[in-house]
Amino acid sequence: MDNRPDKVAFFGLGIMGGPMAANLARAGFDVSVWTRTRENAERFSAEHDVPAGATPAATAAGADALISILPDAPQVEAVLFGDDGAAAALAPGALVVDMSTIAPSASLRIAERLSGDGFDFLEAPVSGSRPKAEDGTLTIMAGGPDEAFTRAQPLFDVLGERIVHVGPQGHGQLAKLLTNVMGAVNAAALAESVVAVRAAGIDPDAFLQVAEGSAGNSAMVTLKGPPMFEERFEPALFKLEHMLKDIRHCIAEAKALGVELRLGTLAETLYARAAEEGHGEEDFAAVLTAVE
Amino acid sequence: MDNRPDKVAFFGLGIMGGPMAANLARAGFDVSVWTRTRENAERFSAEHDVPAGATPAATAAGADALISILPDAPQVEAVLFGDDGAAAALAPGALVVDMSTIAPSASLRIAERLSGDGFDFLEAPVSGSRPKAEDGTLTIMAGGPDEAFTRAQPLFDVLGERIVHVGPQGHGQLAKLLTNVMGAVNAAALAESVVAVRAAGIDPDAFLQVAEGSAGNSAMVTLKGPPMFEERFEPALFKLEHMLKDIRHCIAEAKALGVELRLGTLAETLYARAAEEGHGEEDFAAVLTAVE
Repeated sequence: MDNRPDKVAFFGLGIMGGPMAANLARAGFDVSVWTRTRENAERFSAEHDVPAGATPAATAAGADALISILPDAPQVEAVLFGDDGAAAALAPGALVVDMSTIAPSASLRIAERLSGDGFDFLEAPVSGSRPKAEDGTLTIMAGGPDEAFTRAQPLFDVLGERIVHVGPQGHGQLAKLLTNVMGAVNAAALAESVVAVRAAGIDPDAFLQVAEGSAGNSAMVTLKGPPMFEERFEPALFKLEHMLKDIRHCIAEAKALGVELRLGTLAETLYARAAEEGHGEEDFAAVLTAVE
Repeated sequence: MDNRPDKVAFFGLGIMGGPMAANLARAGFDVSVWTRTRENAERFSAEHDVPAGATPAATAAGADALISILPDAPQVEAVLFGDDGAAAALAPGALVVDMSTIAPSASLRIAERLSGDGFDFLEAPVSGSRPKAEDGTLTIMAGGPDEAFTRAQPLFDVLGERIVHVGPQGHGQLAKLLTNVMGAVNAAALAESVVAVRAAGIDPDAFLQVAEGSAGNSAMVTLKGPPMFEERFEPALFKLEHMLKDIRHCIAEAKALGVELRLGTLAETLYARAAEEGHGEEDFAAVLTAVE
């Protein structure tokens, strides 16, 4: 039997999911889509000439692969197992790939339930912002059985560039959470520098130029340095409230492993303060507002 | 009058200074050297066929340019203004370039004293570890008058790749300190991830591979990730106690500007703990020991 996915039900058409689903359709997969806001699904459907299901079950009917990229575990579980859920409608033995960033423990729970129903499940959170989703050059951090990873490869080839099978279920999600916390800490450290640079009257461009050539360089210097100096936090490439959610998941997972993330905890304080002050829907570069 | 430096007195032959002085000699400058430990200066002298002075004054006699790259301001001031100090021996109107990382306030003090004596002074701290010093591809962050920067350009062309005139006196040093603090914070955040990755049993290579393609990527992931997983902190490419010194200078300078570096302060706590536990002479990747 050819296990190559053909009919793909895609759940979540947000900043990342939209261009990912479009790339799969363009690559010739038989894509159907669903997203929480019905008019968004219909707009996508018209634009990309793919069907939008009225419910998760209708979207997944007969699909041999499902991809979800949703805000958090409750949304993933609702799509799979809720009213008119997708899992019951999938073809027998289908492949389910959750590309959301959720807690490893939640991912393990979903994996158990799906494998009990005879499905292959893989967690595969991604890193990279919208331009990388559009270009199909995301970093994919997969966790799960070899067989599921091999089966998902044709989908990943369309979506990603750096595709790594990190390990068993849970390892992909934990790796993703840890890299996000590093990004959150690095961005907050950059924000502190930005505030000091402005206070000293140093030229922002000169500072960013030397920072990019320094031991303090990070992905955040290039991506968030200019918007921080300009206090420009829209559009939200990655919402601050989503970053805060990931930091909290990661602190909890690390704690369960007996590891205290002290810098992560300080980052949580700063991102939470920015969220409380109304920056939750803005890009996480708005952590600057909590540092000023 | 041709202002191009020819006879260069070089002070400090450490991890960075050694290869920098060697590159200048190779490029045809008439280099003389001095370093605190006499036998190191003599070894360098024999190896590179350049004279080593017995005192700073003897080394600087008649030089039209002086470069110092020393641990901190007291060492720079001792070389310039101490017993048998270099400043009094330099050719009139010589160019003095301090490439050490010191407090901006100390750099301003040195600048004032030297300009009172008719010298051109430029601060020009560098970023990049020994391989970049050897290849002449350092990042140079200069602060001082345009004239001094222009005059130093032929020296910088040999030593650096990314050569930025950040602004007036003090701006080069503050930019350097801020990038070092970002590096210190990013490395400590990486250390927390390394500890969590080990506790979870995630494959280190897989983790570093995805981290390098993630929003959490930083210069530290590539440079310090492997040594942290291997707990290999020798040789010290940049001593932990030197990083701690820079963090402390930076916190003080930021405070004088009314800026609180909260992540920087937490980093100080971690690096200080590692230093207290005997890791001060090791590479600053040993901050891992304070996170475990």
